[in-house]
Amino acid sequence: MTPRPPSPERTEATRARLMAAGVAAFGAKGFHATSTRDIAAAAGMSPAALYIHHRTKEELLHEISAHGHALIADLVASAATGPGSHAERLHRLVHDFVRHHAEAGDAARVVNFELRALSPEHHREIVAVRRRIEADVTALVEAGAEAGEFDVADARLCATALLSLGIDVSRWFTPGRAWDAEQVAEQYAGFALRIVGHRGA
Amino acid sequence: MTPRPPSPERTEATRARLMAAGVAAFGAKGFHATSTRDIAAAAGMSPAALYIHHRTKEELLHEISAHGHALIADLVASAATGPGSHAERLHRLVHDFVRHHAEAGDAARVVNFELRALSPEHHREIVAVRRRIEADVTALVEAGAEAGEFDVADARLCATALLSLGIDVSRWFTPGRAWDAEQVAEQYAGFALRIVGHRGA
Repeated sequence: MTPRPPSPERTEATRARLMAAGVAAFGAKGFHATSTRDIAAAAGMSPAALYIHHRTKEELLHEISAHGHALIADLVASAATGPGSHAERLHRLVHDFVRHHAEAGDAARVVNFELRALSPEHHREIVAVRRRIEADVTALVEAGAEAGEFDVADARLCATALLSLGIDVSRWFTPGRAWDAEQVAEQYAGFALRIVGHRGA
Repeated sequence: MTPRPPSPERTEATRARLMAAGVAAFGAKGFHATSTRDIAAAAGMSPAALYIHHRTKEELLHEISAHGHALIADLVASAATGPGSHAERLHRLVHDFVRHHAEAGDAARVVNFELRALSPEHHREIVAVRRRIEADVTALVEAGAEAGEFDVADARLCATALLSLGIDVSRWFTPGRAWDAEQVAEQYAGFALRIVGHRGA
């Protein structure tokens, strides 16, 4: 008797389990220090079963990276084009961006610090998403300056600094230490308004 | 006839060549993706010759990390305790810190992004240097606030954000692109004064 192929639901659940195992392993040890055997073990499956879903470790990394970048791009675009003054939108954007990088932990580290482990083709695809995120933040800073709300010399470098603050949170933040994710997000959003020279800041 | 042991000068030159090869390889590909064979080849020596200087790849990483952290700790301490107002000292500190992270490139990436590849003992030693750097910046921000020059709610989180800006420069900065190291250093020093709510900023 041939075994029945797994149901679509079961395949989806397995993919999700593999992604979670990949995020945890890559986030804790780094992509290169992780073997496919480590990931299979963490997901409770055999290396052969893993191979059905991802022929290489890089394929799994790409899935994690693409998913994580799409999440962040949505979060940024939705805050940048949302309601409120430019200052209110920038506050929300930096707040949500920082909070995500604090809370996502392993996933945010994989997103930001494993880019060079991607294949050249996947690297190009992901860098394009990052450029879109940078362009959204730059456009908001420029619009705020034109509206007279902000005072900036170089909107692009300003946007780079704002994003840096959040990205680096994923490197240093550990839950349960000095601050919680919301405290860091709230204070960093305040720093952001100061960086852009917001009149009320 | 037994070969004479190498002169101390020659040993020093070889160690320096090995450190440079280690910095370039770890900085470009990451510690785990680099083999001792890669490093030996880049330094123009055999893996056996490398072994005389560093019994493990981690030993070389530790030497690079300790050297890089000592440099940064000196730069920060000297700006923090140097002449001028608190604002002038903070401006110099962030300027020099950012400029170093832009110019040191590979070395700064190894210093900041390969901590988890250190042995537990070396990790403790390096983390102690990083705590000293953070404490120096926090003390300067606190002193500036007490002197009425700065307006900060949480000096330690503020210091974390200021250091983040510089650390993340080593991740994204590429010479010969949009800005040179001095432009980034100068503008980021201005952002730093804004973050601490400097009266004149």
